[in-house]
Amino acid sequence: MPEVLAWEDNCLIILDQTKLPHEISYVKCKDHRDVAEAIRRLQVRGAPAIGIAAAFGYALAAFNFSHENGGSISDQLSKAATELKAARPTAVNLMWAVERMENRYRQVMNSSLDDIRKALLEEALEIFEEEKLRNKRISDFGAELIPEEARILTYCNTGALATGGIGTALGIIVRAHQLGKKIHVYVSETRPVLQGARLTAWELHHMGVPYTLVTDNMAGYLFSRQQVDLVIVGADRIVANGDFANKIGTYGLAVLASYHKVPFYVAAPISTFDLTLATGEQIPVEMRDPEEVRRIGGVLLTLADSPVLNPSFDVTPYHFVTAYITDRGILKPPFNSLFKNLD
Amino acid sequence: MPEVLAWEDNCLIILDQTKLPHEISYVKCKDHRDVAEAIRRLQVRGAPAIGIAAAFGYALAAFNFSHENGGSISDQLSKAATELKAARPTAVNLMWAVERMENRYRQVMNSSLDDIRKALLEEALEIFEEEKLRNKRISDFGAELIPEEARILTYCNTGALATGGIGTALGIIVRAHQLGKKIHVYVSETRPVLQGARLTAWELHHMGVPYTLVTDNMAGYLFSRQQVDLVIVGADRIVANGDFANKIGTYGLAVLASYHKVPFYVAAPISTFDLTLATGEQIPVEMRDPEEVRRIGGVLLTLADSPVLNPSFDVTPYHFVTAYITDRGILKPPFNSLFKNLD
Repeated sequence: MPEVLAWEDNCLIILDQTKLPHEISYVKCKDHRDVAEAIRRLQVRGAPAIGIAAAFGYALAAFNFSHENGGSISDQLSKAATELKAARPTAVNLMWAVERMENRYRQVMNSSLDDIRKALLEEALEIFEEEKLRNKRISDFGAELIPEEARILTYCNTGALATGGIGTALGIIVRAHQLGKKIHVYVSETRPVLQGARLTAWELHHMGVPYTLVTDNMAGYLFSRQQVDLVIVGADRIVANGDFANKIGTYGLAVLASYHKVPFYVAAPISTFDLTLATGEQIPVEMRDPEEVRRIGGVLLTLADSPVLNPSFDVTPYHFVTAYITDRGILKPPFNSLFKNLD
Repeated sequence: MPEVLAWEDNCLIILDQTKLPHEISYVKCKDHRDVAEAIRRLQVRGAPAIGIAAAFGYALAAFNFSHENGGSISDQLSKAATELKAARPTAVNLMWAVERMENRYRQVMNSSLDDIRKALLEEALEIFEEEKLRNKRISDFGAELIPEEARILTYCNTGALATGGIGTALGIIVRAHQLGKKIHVYVSETRPVLQGARLTAWELHHMGVPYTLVTDNMAGYLFSRQQVDLVIVGADRIVANGDFANKIGTYGLAVLASYHKVPFYVAAPISTFDLTLATGEQIPVEMRDPEEVRRIGGVLLTLADSPVLNPSFDVTPYHFVTAYITDRGILKPPFNSLFKNLD
């Protein structure tokens, strides 16, 4: 697997996920604006990965600050934080990571510029390492839940590309495979941006995990023929009561799994939990460019001016979720008290 | 709207639906093999339309028969019938239309070749006209069920392109619009072949019916936000207990509609009913080329050798269906006795 994110020569290097699986190419981000743009364009995507990228983006703002250009570094970093948080509104990891960087800055704001830069870079690198460790814990906890020879339906991409580590939902799948559980994975292509067909299929191929690609509307067929033993998905934001936002289409899978009495697991690091919101109705849902629906790979699929809806996420109520697989173990909502004990 | 099917100069002219909505072009079928190929390639699709096309294909076999080439016309027609029926296994209208042509042939088999040709062409034209009339009846019956300002989710393409007439499910929608009911239609793109995005959006645009295109995995989002008042789909085969086969993805919509207590209607002419089968489990489901999933408009979406499942249909149990809208009125299963009275 190529590196997803890397810090080199005071730049953030991002594997361009919009070019996968056909081309391995990299975007070199020299400042926080480049990072925000890469997040908006989905060159880096997946809730944990955009959190990590944004942390480096914040550090880049300090690296690009110069006393000679006027203004204060506090203003520069504050603007960078706002721009980075606005890049995508739904994934809470982005807010979480930027706020953590802001906290770190407040601790070192009276130091020299060099020390500020060093502290922020170290914080970003630490966020990156912690996310990798969280992934590992999630995959270890989750793999225990996977039965031998399970046929697993997964959605979107929640692997190395989405996290920088082994992955969340896909990390569990890869770990179960490594443990010799003889699993088979159904990969839903995940329109409109096809993270399943482009990224998850590519990762599973690289890891040697047996899989079958299906279009999103084939999930019902698989359930109706008892070909799915469990569903595992990631999350972009999980709120206090357990409701969660994830890639558009997740809700439909949850309803199907519930109707067919198939376990439905959500895998996410604690950086994905937003306990400031009580229920899923409060989660903002990003509406994206209609052209993502009208076209694939530049090819127009419909009328050039077809009216289109393009919500990037949907919200699934907690009662559809069998369990939440986190880096703190297998959890059940409500989460408020749990985190009070653990933090 | 351009003509979908037409008989000209002893050829069947087929509007090439694989080129829509970007190009209006026609396929000229000179013999039954051309027709079978056009059906296999989805240049003509939709259960009623392929029944009509196959009827003309059977007639073409008689037009192409010549005593000088040896063999008997009975053999020629029998071979043509087998080839046409094999073109697509799920839609029963194809079998129904070819069997009706075979019955007509048996009535005139001792006539002159010219009279046989004339009788078979008349029978095919009659099937065409009858399907148009059935469409009209379906759309009239169905439009009564549509509330004012209804937000309707439909699937695949069941309009003029699929039927040669006003349409079945889409015919009802168009009729309700003509009656001034101020409806809004959600068009699901219908992967892998995108009949919704390419054909239904195009038809609704032509008819001036307000619509919004969504990817198939957005249906859950719409239901979860109470944005769907009813679902209407077509069918490729309805069996005695009411179970029916329709485009892959229909089953998932039925489960969603049921969970959200939204009415779910199936619209089809009686040529779509197959009372020789007791339940949906007996319906053969066509598995199509994996390349349909791997590519869109020639663009590779995933790894060139991704393992793929591509069932063209799924089967929805009768208990999900609110009512069956047919040319004989609004029906409820079991259908055996009903048809006994009506035939």
